[in-house]
Amino acid sequence: MDEKAIKNSRRNFLKKGGVGLAAGVGTAAVGLTLGAAEAQAATFDAEYDIVVVGGGGGGLPAALFSRWHGNKVMVLEKAASLGGTSFKAAYWYWVPNNAAMKAAGMEDPKPDFLRYVARLTAPQYYDPSHPRFGLTEWEYAMCEAIYDSASPAAELLSQKGALPYRHVAPVPDYFAELEDKAKTGRVLFPKDGAASMSDGGQVATRTLSAAAKRDGVVIKTGHRVQRVIQNAKGAVIGVEALTDEGGILRVRARKGVIFATGGFTHDPELRKNFLNFPLYGGCAALSNEGDFIRISSTLGVQLRNMNHAWMCPISLEKAVARDGSMSGMFSNAGDSMILVNKYGKRVVDEKLQYNELAQKFFEWDGQKAEYPNLVLMSIWDQRSQDHSASSEYGRLIVPPGADDRHVIKGNTIEELVVGISARLKKYQGVIGGMRLSDDFVSNIKASITRFNDFAKTGKDLDFHRGDRVVEQLFNGDVKDEPSRKNATMWPLSDSGPYYAALVTGGTLDTKGGPKTSTDGKVLDNQDKPIPGLYGVGNCVASASGGAYWAGGATLGPILAFAYRAANAANAEPIKK
Amino acid sequence: MDEKAIKNSRRNFLKKGGVGLAAGVGTAAVGLTLGAAEAQAATFDAEYDIVVVGGGGGGLPAALFSRWHGNKVMVLEKAASLGGTSFKAAYWYWVPNNAAMKAAGMEDPKPDFLRYVARLTAPQYYDPSHPRFGLTEWEYAMCEAIYDSASPAAELLSQKGALPYRHVAPVPDYFAELEDKAKTGRVLFPKDGAASMSDGGQVATRTLSAAAKRDGVVIKTGHRVQRVIQNAKGAVIGVEALTDEGGILRVRARKGVIFATGGFTHDPELRKNFLNFPLYGGCAALSNEGDFIRISSTLGVQLRNMNHAWMCPISLEKAVARDGSMSGMFSNAGDSMILVNKYGKRVVDEKLQYNELAQKFFEWDGQKAEYPNLVLMSIWDQRSQDHSASSEYGRLIVPPGADDRHVIKGNTIEELVVGISARLKKYQGVIGGMRLSDDFVSNIKASITRFNDFAKTGKDLDFHRGDRVVEQLFNGDVKDEPSRKNATMWPLSDSGPYYAALVTGGTLDTKGGPKTSTDGKVLDNQDKPIPGLYGVGNCVASASGGAYWAGGATLGPILAFAYRAANAANAEPIKK
Repeated sequence: MDEKAIKNSRRNFLKKGGVGLAAGVGTAAVGLTLGAAEAQAATFDAEYDIVVVGGGGGGLPAALFSRWHGNKVMVLEKAASLGGTSFKAAYWYWVPNNAAMKAAGMEDPKPDFLRYVARLTAPQYYDPSHPRFGLTEWEYAMCEAIYDSASPAAELLSQKGALPYRHVAPVPDYFAELEDKAKTGRVLFPKDGAASMSDGGQVATRTLSAAAKRDGVVIKTGHRVQRVIQNAKGAVIGVEALTDEGGILRVRARKGVIFATGGFTHDPELRKNFLNFPLYGGCAALSNEGDFIRISSTLGVQLRNMNHAWMCPISLEKAVARDGSMSGMFSNAGDSMILVNKYGKRVVDEKLQYNELAQKFFEWDGQKAEYPNLVLMSIWDQRSQDHSASSEYGRLIVPPGADDRHVIKGNTIEELVVGISARLKKYQGVIGGMRLSDDFVSNIKASITRFNDFAKTGKDLDFHRGDRVVEQLFNGDVKDEPSRKNATMWPLSDSGPYYAALVTGGTLDTKGGPKTSTDGKVLDNQDKPIPGLYGVGNCVASASGGAYWAGGATLGPILAFAYRAANAANAEPIKK
Repeated sequence: MDEKAIKNSRRNFLKKGGVGLAAGVGTAAVGLTLGAAEAQAATFDAEYDIVVVGGGGGGLPAALFSRWHGNKVMVLEKAASLGGTSFKAAYWYWVPNNAAMKAAGMEDPKPDFLRYVARLTAPQYYDPSHPRFGLTEWEYAMCEAIYDSASPAAELLSQKGALPYRHVAPVPDYFAELEDKAKTGRVLFPKDGAASMSDGGQVATRTLSAAAKRDGVVIKTGHRVQRVIQNAKGAVIGVEALTDEGGILRVRARKGVIFATGGFTHDPELRKNFLNFPLYGGCAALSNEGDFIRISSTLGVQLRNMNHAWMCPISLEKAVARDGSMSGMFSNAGDSMILVNKYGKRVVDEKLQYNELAQKFFEWDGQKAEYPNLVLMSIWDQRSQDHSASSEYGRLIVPPGADDRHVIKGNTIEELVVGISARLKKYQGVIGGMRLSDDFVSNIKASITRFNDFAKTGKDLDFHRGDRVVEQLFNGDVKDEPSRKNATMWPLSDSGPYYAALVTGGTLDTKGGPKTSTDGKVLDNQDKPIPGLYGVGNCVASASGGAYWAGGATLGPILAFAYRAANAANAEPIKK
């Protein structure tokens, strides 16, 4: 079949499915909302009760929850395949007071949960004696919704066979040593995932998709929603999608439209104008280009939490290349490994959990007008190469046979530094001409000597590496050493070979978008719901501020809001 | 006259002026745009060629430029008086290649200007060999517009007697040591301002207002514009203002509406959701509450540069009190003065220029989940109190008789620390319960000893205090010491009394809003101008990113864009 034949075949397939395509208007841009008059005249190609936009970690559950109420449901996914960002995720999901905790007798009282999230979400307003612990009314209500609904959502998905899970009780919250009564126990993981818990996204996408197919959710990939269609009263009654063949599909939504289209990680302009970090991207699905920001820009919505992202260190080179397979560096592996900046100096605890570590790259030096840590060099020796290499969790120390184009090698420190300099030069147009300082070689040698002294005693007097329980979680494999005092540190060897990689800060995805109610209803600038319009996940405003409460603090809340939005959309009246 | 009589009198005054008031709808909220049908039916209370919203540093010049084209012009100002933020400003204005430079033979070639602004605006993309030096097309065009039009604007204002100036040739740019050919010479200042150049805002507001009155610009204070009125084609044909009496005034704008309503410094929700800093406010006019963000939220605009602000350290206590008279701490005065954090440690060059110093307060410690520098303590001794006190430039060391409620005193370090602790306790609900570390006293003594050693040699080995030329500009008065090696440092005394004040980071105002063309035309999400709608100043997107290029880099560009917007609005067709 040639390309045209394939297109015709697809058209016919769509037509057979009851979906007619309007004349192609492939240049139509995202972000226009039809005026009332136009909407009245719009003819629809298909009609469903609930249309879900996006088939990823928010969209598939929202579609299933909607379908299980008996609704006719369509999912429109922009990409060629399902899963979105969650497909690449480890897919831990953080579920407070979950059923498995209760069964195991682990307590997780609501006020303590709220105190913990408040402490991290609003550090400067946190007040344990305040009735909302310093959170705003909206933040507090949204966090209550997570506590109330994440577990019912997880249980329903499990009961229906759409997302069976196992309870990984020992995983600690990321700041378990702070005001956190349930320091462990909130993390669930797809049941059939690997022991290393890195492949949950593939498992979950498979089980969720299979359940959607089994239960009659209609799914169209390659359909990019570019407008909402409103009736004369402003209610959202459908969407218009551009198909990957350049056609237009207009779908009526009798009850409502649920957006779950992800954040704006891959729109450089939105990134630059909302996130106060000089970011090169992140590991969100490449289709996460902020569509809902543009689509909602005529609706009088309130954009909120636009300044924050779920953050993670990433390989500079993969980010610049927009490598769609890129994972965040969740685990900065190796014991005989350090991170240094362009001056050859350590600047951070290398084992800090990813969201916190990522922020270190963006510190501004107002004297020199530079980001001195914008690119950090990870440096390791043969020991870490031999004992800590892995292809999981975005580690930069990879095993033989894996893609190691990001790895720079040298038999001596001097040789390694020559290689690093050459590699930086390749990227000079996007790193402001950053180059290593003239005293880099002597500084990095001094940094290694100092680190090695710390490693021998097990005490990092500069950055306290390995002191916190969460740092063990991300340490990865290291060589067994009965004498070691700190599992995260070991002296770097006096002799080569040495290895290096360029690291910068990135996103998993962004956290901002239109403000919603606790039921996912998109609110207008008077805080009133726009009838028929819902949003869940990274395309709408998160109430977490800049906090990353725990592993799975992305997906757990998303399941809660998908569940609540589906319940609310189900209860909507039919709109004309 | 009782309150009611005053209101009636005002109503009558307005009616006499040809301005009828519609029935009061005092609860009408900002941010709704009338639908096409409503707009058609709207009756107007007054009609002008150009309506300028805001009577501050952008609005008054825009109104004058518009009037000098022969237009009938009205200014609607929300506050009770004119000047906005600029009234409180020193009102330096940064004008590249200005007429006085040319007259003095000081060269300022356009490519060099653009290279300098690019270096600071896009530090990670700056590339001297790139055709736009790493700036985006929009940023580059906007910066070109500043170069091209700031001087014509300044000259016209001067020639018309609206803003006579004097050239303060020796003032350096804030990063004059970087890629900056015209290291000095770009700063102009209102002609009749004080020798200390701190009172330019009062002088400029007076001369601009007088010119507006003289030349027939109609000005209404106490009028808060809350909506734009569009015709059936979407063109902006007027505005609706809420008067301070609760009435509604609808004004038709035959050619266009120019918004110059300032940023969102005083809207806590917008601040929190767009600026990635835990800010308590700033020294913008209290009326700068982000009105244009809300008003434009139904128009499909593109919000840009929302993550940045013109920044400045401020007194924590004045910020929390929303003290409308508060100035930014442009000058951190005193030689025997240091800033320390809650651990009693110096963390920054105290003489760093204000925009850069302010960012230090917001560094995040991802290990402790805290902002360790959110509140810094300024500590000084009797020497600095005697020789560096001043009421200008927001200095915290104030002379006898001035409001010194923010000053904490102690006869010994120990006594001072008791006072600081008590003061912090007062604010614990807004600083996350921050308190001094248990080893604060010993640490601050060690910090003073180390600083004193640096002061004796004139070399600050930790933070390079005083090494840059711009730091002298902000040093303020210090005691004459023929033997001194560094004008910014002198050892703190071994004996009290000692003084302290609580400092945090704040804004002068924010830098984000709808994107405009280089002529101030507000653009929709297809980059097309919304007919009849203009924006200048801090209510629209600045192309400067996070950079503060030089003193007056706020007002110089604002004059350029007011000039360009007025010229473009003058050329607009009359709209129905």
